[in-house]
Amino acid sequence: MDQEKNLIYEDLSGLNKRDEIIRVAAKLFRNLGYIETSMKDIADRVGILKGSLYYHFSSKEELLNEVINKGIDLLLVIAQQVYKQYEQNPQERLKQLVKLHLLHLTNNNEYLVIATNQTDKLTLEHRENYIVKRDLYESLLRETLEEGIRADQFPPLDIKLTILAILGMCNWIVQWYKHDGPYSAEYITDYLSTLICDRMLAK
Amino acid sequence: MDQEKNLIYEDLSGLNKRDEIIRVAAKLFRNLGYIETSMKDIADRVGILKGSLYYHFSSKEELLNEVINKGIDLLLVIAQQVYKQYEQNPQERLKQLVKLHLLHLTNNNEYLVIATNQTDKLTLEHRENYIVKRDLYESLLRETLEEGIRADQFPPLDIKLTILAILGMCNWIVQWYKHDGPYSAEYITDYLSTLICDRMLAK
Repeated sequence: MDQEKNLIYEDLSGLNKRDEIIRVAAKLFRNLGYIETSMKDIADRVGILKGSLYYHFSSKEELLNEVINKGIDLLLVIAQQVYKQYEQNPQERLKQLVKLHLLHLTNNNEYLVIATNQTDKLTLEHRENYIVKRDLYESLLRETLEEGIRADQFPPLDIKLTILAILGMCNWIVQWYKHDGPYSAEYITDYLSTLICDRMLAK
Repeated sequence: MDQEKNLIYEDLSGLNKRDEIIRVAAKLFRNLGYIETSMKDIADRVGILKGSLYYHFSSKEELLNEVINKGIDLLLVIAQQVYKQYEQNPQERLKQLVKLHLLHLTNNNEYLVIATNQTDKLTLEHRENYIVKRDLYESLLRETLEEGIRADQFPPLDIKLTILAILGMCNWIVQWYKHDGPYSAEYITDYLSTLICDRMLAK
């Protein structure tokens, strides 16, 4: 019984350590760059030996894959909830999806930031898995635009190019946004989502 | 006299070789990444010895700086011409500036592409020089928006955030545009400049 309990604790502690390593790796990849960050940098920052790091992750690329998945998985789950919540109103649904995307990026979500600009460092297999998720995410935006056009809430659009325009406007903030900068996350989220949904896509 | 002529030819040939090296470096930085590209890769591709490459450029960072300057300098010169040509009409001026930016990016301008995403690899001094040019470029957009608002051609705007939104929509195409992809450079340029100028900034 006691032995079983200990095993569970060990598992949990292993899980927490994994999470902590992924979180530290995400910060370092963001601040130093993926290539410039070494496994030793990550181990030092977590406070473990490099050998212990390799016990959890077999390579730096495996860590990058975990970081990127963590970013896209969380966004996907919440976006699917928003999609359902606003199922009846494509126009409002789009606005909420855009706000969610912007809030995720500004809330210093290193995971998602890495997913916007480091996926070319993944192995082919990991990159293919990422693309499946990215396409699933984009399909939520695509279906929302298609429904909104049919419901006469949006003008006729080239849907693919419009999604790329929206993602560009949103994702570009990773290039300039700073927590201690002049704009708050809420202001950016409100301003850009209004530009996109109430102006660019106004009927 | 003959000796003088030879010196001129030598200088000219040195100049052409420099240009060729910068062009090759830009392509490699774009395709492989700046950090992943070695001076030997560049020398091999140009067809010279690594030692000869160091005769022209003292470091890879110096080459990166040349590539980025080439991108931004050319864009700045043409943007200033467009600015003058459409001085009387801020609305049309903005549209032409946005089209110029998009055409430059799609015309496989590796120089400008590197300038959108590799400037963090520059030395502090080179980066500061780049930022002066980038700010000069953004001032052309800022003045155009300010004049357009005063002339009642645009709605009231947060000018700084609107410029970042426009640059995001445009610059993001470096993430997905391919010469042999489904969209032509002209179609993308027309579609996005219409979204920005005729829809997002419509009065």
